[in-house]
Amino acid sequence: MSELATTLGRNIREKRKKNGFSQDAFALAAGIDRSYIGRVERGEVNITVEKLYEIAAVLQCEPTSLLPAQNTL
Amino acid sequence: MSELATTLGRNIREKRKKNGFSQDAFALAAGIDRSYIGRVERGEVNITVEKLYEIAAVLQCEPTSLLPAQNTL
Repeated sequence: MSELATTLGRNIREKRKKNGFSQDAFALAAGIDRSYIGRVERGEVNITVEKLYEIAAVLQCEPTSLLPAQNTL
Repeated sequence: MSELATTLGRNIREKRKKNGFSQDAFALAAGIDRSYIGRVERGEVNITVEKLYEIAAVLQCEPTSLLPAQNTL
């Protein structure tokens, strides 16, 4: 489990909660399996850039806003 | 082949050339197969966020600087 995946997952979880999505509602809106979202948020998955954009679209934010700066890792 | 992968690949190629790397030298520095780099640059691969950070580290730039804005896709 990498620091990058962990931080990215935490950022996604925070943004999801801020937007008032449960994991279930978010999974439904994103068309992604609920257990997969859980694994992403726990940093257990290395998601693709494509998936990052899909998640950011549902969260109505820029994909880059979810990514940690290189020098913080 | 998605618009995202195509644009990301083009950005990586431009940055690689600006930094004076041949594809061979870049592949060596990044520890990535040369044919894989070619496929990334042509937008034929959906790379992971992890791989994006590795590529950006070799190119000495922020990973986010290689990503297109959501609304340009």
